Amino acid sequence: MLGNRYDDQVCSIARTLEQVGERWSLLILRDAIFGGATRFGEFQRSLGIATNVLAGRLEGFVADGLMERQPAPDQPEVFEYVLTDKGRDLTTTLVALTEWGDRWSAPDGPPILYRDRVSGGRVRANLICEPSGSTPAADVEIEAGPGMPPEMAAGLPAPRHPG
Amino acid sequence: MLGNRYDDQVCSIARTLEQVGERWSLLILRDAIFGGATRFGEFQRSLGIATNVLAGRLEGFVADGLMERQPAPDQPEVFEYVLTDKGRDLTTTLVALTEWGDRWSAPDGPPILYRDRVSGGRVRANLICEPSGSTPAADVEIEAGPGMPPEMAAGLPAPRHPG
Repeated sequence: MLGNRYDDQVCSIARTLEQVGERWSLLILRDAIFGGATRFGEFQRSLGIATNVLAGRLEGFVADGLMERQPAPDQPEVFEYVLTDKGRDLTTTLVALTEWGDRWSAPDGPPILYRDRVSGGRVRANLICEPSGSTPAADVEIEAGPGMPPEMAAGLPAPRHPG
Repeated sequence: MLGNRYDDQVCSIARTLEQVGERWSLLILRDAIFGGATRFGEFQRSLGIATNVLAGRLEGFVADGLMERQPAPDQPEVFEYVLTDKGRDLTTTLVALTEWGDRWSAPDGPPILYRDRVSGGRVRANLICEPSGSTPAADVEIEAGPGMPPEMAAGLPAPRHPG
């Protein structure tokens, strides 16, 4: 939906941003995921953006499979934009973005806290290392995965981990 | 650095996107955090973007405190753009964006894997609930935090958690 300008990036970050990296996209998904918004007017009131911009973003989400357009149960002539699993799967990304803003741009403290609706506990986005628990950000390094073309893998920094 | 257009959003996601939400910003930070890039030419070769766009993004990161401009140790007439703690703190967000792309837009498998450089274990971004371990995305809900003005808190959805 952003054209082809990230196309030479063999990178899941770039592929994600192609679908959710336009201005307002992640705030629309925020309203859908955490605010339960489904109708054009709900998004528009929350965000105050131009209706043509909002319409374009919602159409893009439908085209990319992050939302489905469905008739409203109580008002079949009105459309609702309902999150798919793919759309809802951005929850971790949104919590991580929130925590960064809370740490660096929230002089009055966090505006929003995330809680587990079952336990009531505070929810955070953490880096987890499978065998040994949490990982400090400074210890994260990259290596080529199965989706990296071999000729590009040679350009990656050499890993320093023991494995 | 994006003007004032998110200014009426009392939201740490919006405040984060003001600093890292412009096109290419998160890919520049990806190259700095995981690729170790510090020099203008390194970013430019990796991304292939217009030099004026790249210069604007790097200047924005310096202005917002995500990078510091320093003379290169071996070549003092050349500048390096060195991540600050604030810049490096986007690691969790980048890993979360990667995992979404790996799940939904990586037909050949993940191009990049993240590992803990100490243990060698695979690193992932997970939602963690403090008392009880991991939280499914569907169970995350919001409540007002200390930085939410009371008159705005009334507009939030009512929490459903027991606490």
